Amino acid sequence: MSKRKYTIGVDFGTESGRAVLVDVVDGSEIVSAVHPYADGVIDEVLPGTSTELPPDFALQNPADYIEVLRATIPAILRESGVAAEDVIGVGTDFTACTMLPIDEGGTPLCMNPKWRGNPYAWVKIWKHHAAQQEANHLNEIALHRDETWLSRYGGKISSEWLFPKIWETLNQAPEIYQAADRFIEGADWIVLQLTGEERRNSCTAGYKAMWNKREGYPSDDFFAALDPRLRHVVDEKLSLEIYPLGQRAGYLTPEMAEITGLRPGTAVSIGNVDAHVSVPAATVVEPGRMVIIMGTSNCHMVLGSEERIVPGMCGVVEDGIIAGFHGFEAGQSCVGDHFAWFVNNCVPTDCHDEARARGVDLHQLLEEKASQQDPGEHGLIALDWWNGNRSVLVDVDLTGLLVGATLATKPEDIYRALIEATAYGTRMIIDTFEQNGVAVQEIVACGGLPDRNKLLMQIYSDVTGREIRVSASQQTPALGSAMFGAVAAGSAAGGYDSIFEAAQHMACLKEEAYRPVPKHRAVYEQLYAEYVLLHDYFGRGGNDVMKRLKELRARARTVS
Amino acid sequence: MSKRKYTIGVDFGTESGRAVLVDVVDGSEIVSAVHPYADGVIDEVLPGTSTELPPDFALQNPADYIEVLRATIPAILRESGVAAEDVIGVGTDFTACTMLPIDEGGTPLCMNPKWRGNPYAWVKIWKHHAAQQEANHLNEIALHRDETWLSRYGGKISSEWLFPKIWETLNQAPEIYQAADRFIEGADWIVLQLTGEERRNSCTAGYKAMWNKREGYPSDDFFAALDPRLRHVVDEKLSLEIYPLGQRAGYLTPEMAEITGLRPGTAVSIGNVDAHVSVPAATVVEPGRMVIIMGTSNCHMVLGSEERIVPGMCGVVEDGIIAGFHGFEAGQSCVGDHFAWFVNNCVPTDCHDEARARGVDLHQLLEEKASQQDPGEHGLIALDWWNGNRSVLVDVDLTGLLVGATLATKPEDIYRALIEATAYGTRMIIDTFEQNGVAVQEIVACGGLPDRNKLLMQIYSDVTGREIRVSASQQTPALGSAMFGAVAAGSAAGGYDSIFEAAQHMACLKEEAYRPVPKHRAVYEQLYAEYVLLHDYFGRGGNDVMKRLKELRARARTVS
Repeated sequence: MSKRKYTIGVDFGTESGRAVLVDVVDGSEIVSAVHPYADGVIDEVLPGTSTELPPDFALQNPADYIEVLRATIPAILRESGVAAEDVIGVGTDFTACTMLPIDEGGTPLCMNPKWRGNPYAWVKIWKHHAAQQEANHLNEIALHRDETWLSRYGGKISSEWLFPKIWETLNQAPEIYQAADRFIEGADWIVLQLTGEERRNSCTAGYKAMWNKREGYPSDDFFAALDPRLRHVVDEKLSLEIYPLGQRAGYLTPEMAEITGLRPGTAVSIGNVDAHVSVPAATVVEPGRMVIIMGTSNCHMVLGSEERIVPGMCGVVEDGIIAGFHGFEAGQSCVGDHFAWFVNNCVPTDCHDEARARGVDLHQLLEEKASQQDPGEHGLIALDWWNGNRSVLVDVDLTGLLVGATLATKPEDIYRALIEATAYGTRMIIDTFEQNGVAVQEIVACGGLPDRNKLLMQIYSDVTGREIRVSASQQTPALGSAMFGAVAAGSAAGGYDSIFEAAQHMACLKEEAYRPVPKHRAVYEQLYAEYVLLHDYFGRGGNDVMKRLKELRARARTVS
Repeated sequence: MSKRKYTIGVDFGTESGRAVLVDVVDGSEIVSAVHPYADGVIDEVLPGTSTELPPDFALQNPADYIEVLRATIPAILRESGVAAEDVIGVGTDFTACTMLPIDEGGTPLCMNPKWRGNPYAWVKIWKHHAAQQEANHLNEIALHRDETWLSRYGGKISSEWLFPKIWETLNQAPEIYQAADRFIEGADWIVLQLTGEERRNSCTAGYKAMWNKREGYPSDDFFAALDPRLRHVVDEKLSLEIYPLGQRAGYLTPEMAEITGLRPGTAVSIGNVDAHVSVPAATVVEPGRMVIIMGTSNCHMVLGSEERIVPGMCGVVEDGIIAGFHGFEAGQSCVGDHFAWFVNNCVPTDCHDEARARGVDLHQLLEEKASQQDPGEHGLIALDWWNGNRSVLVDVDLTGLLVGATLATKPEDIYRALIEATAYGTRMIIDTFEQNGVAVQEIVACGGLPDRNKLLMQIYSDVTGREIRVSASQQTPALGSAMFGAVAAGSAAGGYDSIFEAAQHMACLKEEAYRPVPKHRAVYEQLYAEYVLLHDYFGRGGNDVMKRLKELRARARTVS
């Protein structure tokens, strides 16, 4: 009884999968293993064929997911010396919407030689962007029909989500649509593989497929308005049974036990999404504390006791993050990408020379130089829209703006202004949540940026006026999955009976905290007011110059 | 009688003086010589002392001007083999407002050992910026008193001009003000040295000292409102006699003949300003053709038959450029400086590597890359205010703006956008002139940029919708001075009787012409409309964010 128990979390990312073995008692991460997908992101040629893919395609090979299990789980067992019987549960998380067509038995169509040469038979991953036309039509029709669910998604459905991708397949490859018994999220397909049970999760259904716990999916009439052939898409190609996060999906099959080295019958949790599973891993299982996953982009998640319609969010889903709560998600489409763009395109030779001489990288050098400034000292302000605006404007056609440059403006000034711009964007999201009844008192950060850029963290704290803590784990999604694995196992097996208990024991924060500096706050209040003025002028129709420039640009590129 | 005759133009610049020997018949530039000022621009320590200068000081040593004559004129005579008797006239031009206090005999106070240690006894050159406070007060009082002459200067007198500089001396060094018999422009002082005659020119008086041919100087009451001690500043410290350009100031004194190797009695023209003297050297002696001197900044000059009040110009002066016409001047404070800032601060290593590998400089590389684009293709627009806006907003507190950046934006995109921004700024000046009754049908460019950047010239032509010709001379100011030297000599001596005749024979344009490309025009009309919208929003009070950012910046720098 007193023997240590473990769970395994498996995080299926964009380029690879990662498994981590976690001690159930205190959440310590014993050992982890990463396995890159052999076929990676497929965006040029279908593997084993000479079939060239159209633009904006991003596919994966589902066989690579199984290979992750086969490679990583035996490796972490071996390396840790932990016995299979002491691993009481497995949890998984996936990118989303990452979807595939399967046959009646759950086999992906691309594994069938008949369909292997057809790109639409493969997994379309989250960043597959070839369904934009379908998304545009879907949005027009939903708006025209005044569909109530639209407001839960900031008024706009992304081309990355499930129904545009299904519709794209129907339009471009009706034979695949026909042949598909069902379309399924990767998150649910991997669970089906592990357990033999199809238990679709409420997170992907809610955030990516417009499903709602009380109202279900959009109506058949809506789908018929898109395309008569889609009238019964839910009945025919999906499933009406959706399971809340935190439940057990089933038990490991003998086949999967064989592959992984785990015991048959090991508990397996309902599938989840990488971002959302990070929330409890960042200790957040209650309203009022926002988790921000900070990386190339920012993802903001916060829980609420009631459904609220907050303009410009990515979605509100009951049971979408933690069962029993409404999970609110918002996002910024360009954060780390912003700084990377700057460093790759705008940093002069003398900065490179200085960085080299001092043995630091360019980000470190610029951060150090920018750290020596007081707020307002560079005289700049930027709008963080280099990759459009996700929340709260939901407008991909917005572009970047920098104001205040003089002949004395230095690279570190612009670098700092870009960091600040992303902080203002987060502040705008927080303010919008609070104005609409969703409290945000504290922030917990996770992802790649918090450890790399202390200046950025301090600026976020100063701009938002909130204390920011940082998740202790370097691999929060995998830890979150392992926590859900412990819940799937339950207390009787040495796990936990709820994600709340699991979070209490297995998740923790670093000691360090970023707290707002009062004299910075005062200046940032003024600067944020300027940001809001520019944000609303350029983002809410005061001057649509950004859209007109994009049109001119598109026209020039067509002509030339 | 048929023997070739020559004149010499001497251009007194910021760092050096240049003399050029010109053939009177066809304006060919036979030989030129440059002599750097030994003391250069004095902005740290007074020469021969340990007196440190206050911030914003920029002085010169008038002895250096004499040294230019002594070094260059004998050198060009020697090198050309031209005999002194064949040099029939001398013309000069100067930077302005570049002013100095002199004693009754015309000797600069700084040459008097008694005053040599006093910075205010030296020449304050055009970019001496320590009289900003005086300029601010002067503008407030002039506005308050509704002084009619103010509108001739875009509603604002620059701290670079004569009266702020005189007032600064009165405030900071009343003993120098007292000791000064007169204050004089360098342009007029050098003529006084050459001829022994004080013949103040209508160009500096008009553009830099608020003098007007019909109304004279501002009233004693105005000066008394500034400071009671200034009530009689014009009578006591200046001269009421102002001479139009194109006249002969007098004849070379024996002392100056000795120094220069020229014959005593050689005709010397009235003094002039480097920018303004370039206009006839660029063949322009009639209304409708704008001369743009393109370098670190742009200076726009155009002639008109009547006085017009054009908002935001630098000045309108009757006889200010060509006698008999009203000379209109406007300016952009940041053009070449803009591109230099960009190249120094924003160009990544791979551009440097590529430039090095191909043996071109960064400007050439960026120009080449930017040339491959069609108008509108980069999706950007900028406001060219990195160094404030001279015309038509007359506001030094405006700053730069860039809109439209995305993660795909490349350095050459921004470089092109900055070039275009300066072209839009020029278009705004032209449109403002035309809307106020001053015609601009064609453009003649001179200065350093036209030869270096063909893309820039084509963009200016496309954006303004005008043909642009380029002055044939590489040293237009010196050529212009030589032309005025020929007019001072007169036809009887082998010169000309008017600057019109001189321009017809001595000035010429390059063969090449830049003409608007119709399909570029159409796109640039749209982009210019966007520029105007942003220009008016940020420049005319729609959103004073630039000023507020500057205030925050100043406050942050005071604190830190």
